[in-house]
Amino acid sequence: MGQLELLDQTLLPTSVEMLPFHDLHGVHEAIVSLRVRGAPAIGIAAAYGVVVGLQDAIRRRASTKESVQLATEACDYLATSRPTAVNLFWALDRMKRVIDRNTGVASAVELGNQLLREARLIHDEDRRMCHAIGEYGAALFEEGFGILTHCNTGGLATSEYGTALAAILTAHDQGKDIHVFADETRPLLQGARLTMWELQQYGVPCTLICDSMAPQVMREGRIQAVIVGADRITARGDTANKIGTYGVAIAAKHHGVPFYVAAPTSTFDLSIVEGNEIPIEQRKSEEITCAFGRRTAPEGVSVYNPAFDVTPAELITAIVTERGVIHPVDEQHVRAMVVRNASV
Amino acid sequence: MGQLELLDQTLLPTSVEMLPFHDLHGVHEAIVSLRVRGAPAIGIAAAYGVVVGLQDAIRRRASTKESVQLATEACDYLATSRPTAVNLFWALDRMKRVIDRNTGVASAVELGNQLLREARLIHDEDRRMCHAIGEYGAALFEEGFGILTHCNTGGLATSEYGTALAAILTAHDQGKDIHVFADETRPLLQGARLTMWELQQYGVPCTLICDSMAPQVMREGRIQAVIVGADRITARGDTANKIGTYGVAIAAKHHGVPFYVAAPTSTFDLSIVEGNEIPIEQRKSEEITCAFGRRTAPEGVSVYNPAFDVTPAELITAIVTERGVIHPVDEQHVRAMVVRNASV
Repeated sequence: MGQLELLDQTLLPTSVEMLPFHDLHGVHEAIVSLRVRGAPAIGIAAAYGVVVGLQDAIRRRASTKESVQLATEACDYLATSRPTAVNLFWALDRMKRVIDRNTGVASAVELGNQLLREARLIHDEDRRMCHAIGEYGAALFEEGFGILTHCNTGGLATSEYGTALAAILTAHDQGKDIHVFADETRPLLQGARLTMWELQQYGVPCTLICDSMAPQVMREGRIQAVIVGADRITARGDTANKIGTYGVAIAAKHHGVPFYVAAPTSTFDLSIVEGNEIPIEQRKSEEITCAFGRRTAPEGVSVYNPAFDVTPAELITAIVTERGVIHPVDEQHVRAMVVRNASV
Repeated sequence: MGQLELLDQTLLPTSVEMLPFHDLHGVHEAIVSLRVRGAPAIGIAAAYGVVVGLQDAIRRRASTKESVQLATEACDYLATSRPTAVNLFWALDRMKRVIDRNTGVASAVELGNQLLREARLIHDEDRRMCHAIGEYGAALFEEGFGILTHCNTGGLATSEYGTALAAILTAHDQGKDIHVFADETRPLLQGARLTMWELQQYGVPCTLICDSMAPQVMREGRIQAVIVGADRITARGDTANKIGTYGVAIAAKHHGVPFYVAAPTSTFDLSIVEGNEIPIEQRKSEEITCAFGRRTAPEGVSVYNPAFDVTPAELITAIVTERGVIHPVDEQHVRAMVVRNASV
């Protein structure tokens, strides 16, 4: 059945290392510790993770009943890894539906094959999604644009090209003369470590700044558009994304700079309307107090470390999905784009 | 004549070390490398630095003419250490006026004594200034306030209690139940390393956050006032302060939170009106790419690293000085407070 391998993103940019996964706990740990991160990539990794969780049962030629139970437990366990990105639950729901449809199969092998097929389908759909978002997003950028992005939304966060970064890379591929400003994205520096690395690989002109410098760069007239990814978007368009996104959106509004979100329809959670209903993951204080192995705050200080914030729809100019651009951002236009067969 | 000793702030909070200074170059390097930092503290250190620069001449019993020349050169040299904080130039101008008044003295020793007296006067005035700013500033905070601050404005940045931090510490001394949120302040983490350390020493309830989290904390209703220091304030009230201040001011306005600046009148530069005339120091890229000894961005990336930004007067609710509170912030009210004997 092959083997799941993921690039360990915590080691970038100084080391490029592939991690092989032999059991479910390894996949769970990789998501918790951000070895794999980015809403779409978490969904894909979790889908493959369910298959990894069944490999031992397949080797043992376990009964169908036991295999179904193990696969279901794998889904439930992986769902506890991170609370905010909805793509995780979306992917695991798809895997669960495959399990439900295959309770009558003859063997663990057959169930495993069905699950692997679904994981590959999710993976393939993600590739197409990246391509489509890239095309729709690139159309928003004009020649000479300075574009600000926050966190990492490239191939590392997805299967290919990414979401917000796909729009940037596609514009660059089209020959548009753009310049990217990347927020370093404290505390874990996904912008400095990952986005700058990806932009460098693709040869896109780019400048690294600290998160706190973005408003100043806007004031200097160097930013014509902001584009970011999303971890969960509500029915009215309120968007949970990496902490710091909300501040960027406020600064963009203050400077009259359009603020775009790029995300696949799998990132929408139409079961909730208001952004404050999105659960926000709190992470450990050491991410802030022990930056990069050295203690940078006194022992024993109190720390607040939310991994995400919510940008209300009012601050979002448009949301770029693989099906098209949602604009203006409100419940009517979100539902019209996201609900299949909905009439506009 | 004693010896100049300064706390090496680059080693905080893990190590508390006093640095002795034997020559002018050491003082210059200490200001450039932020071993001593904070607009008022830079002014005080530079004033004493002129005396340090004369010590060798005093030991050699150099001629008055040579001593005057050495002291003047010391002033000019120290003025090249950092471009933005005006207190540096203000203090050196005072030292220069002492030199000018003492070109006829009998010896290097006498000139040195006059210069030391002026440096001590600047130092003493700073202590009284901190106390007065603390009293005026504390009056702005009510029981139960959450107060956000950015960078470090405490005793480390001044001679005592500080400017913005003086207001916080005085309110705490008055028994007011306040809670401070301190931005860590990238890239050099003065908030995490210095402000949290000072607040901890004084027992003020406080929470450390990343700079990008401030808007979210405001959105949660946990901030009732923002107070920051300043490195230079123009005649209309535009304020240069640590990079990130401008973004905090925009977020405060968005949330209807008052935004206060606390600074002595020596921080005002009435020779310029518009904030964009303030020279902004650009610092080296390694401060961002090699955070605390570990490389956190790919080799060879382009970096933008302005040390300060300018917050326009329109975003500032009031400026707290040692003479009283400037409100509203405009040229008329700034001049009325700062120009001695000006009529309101």
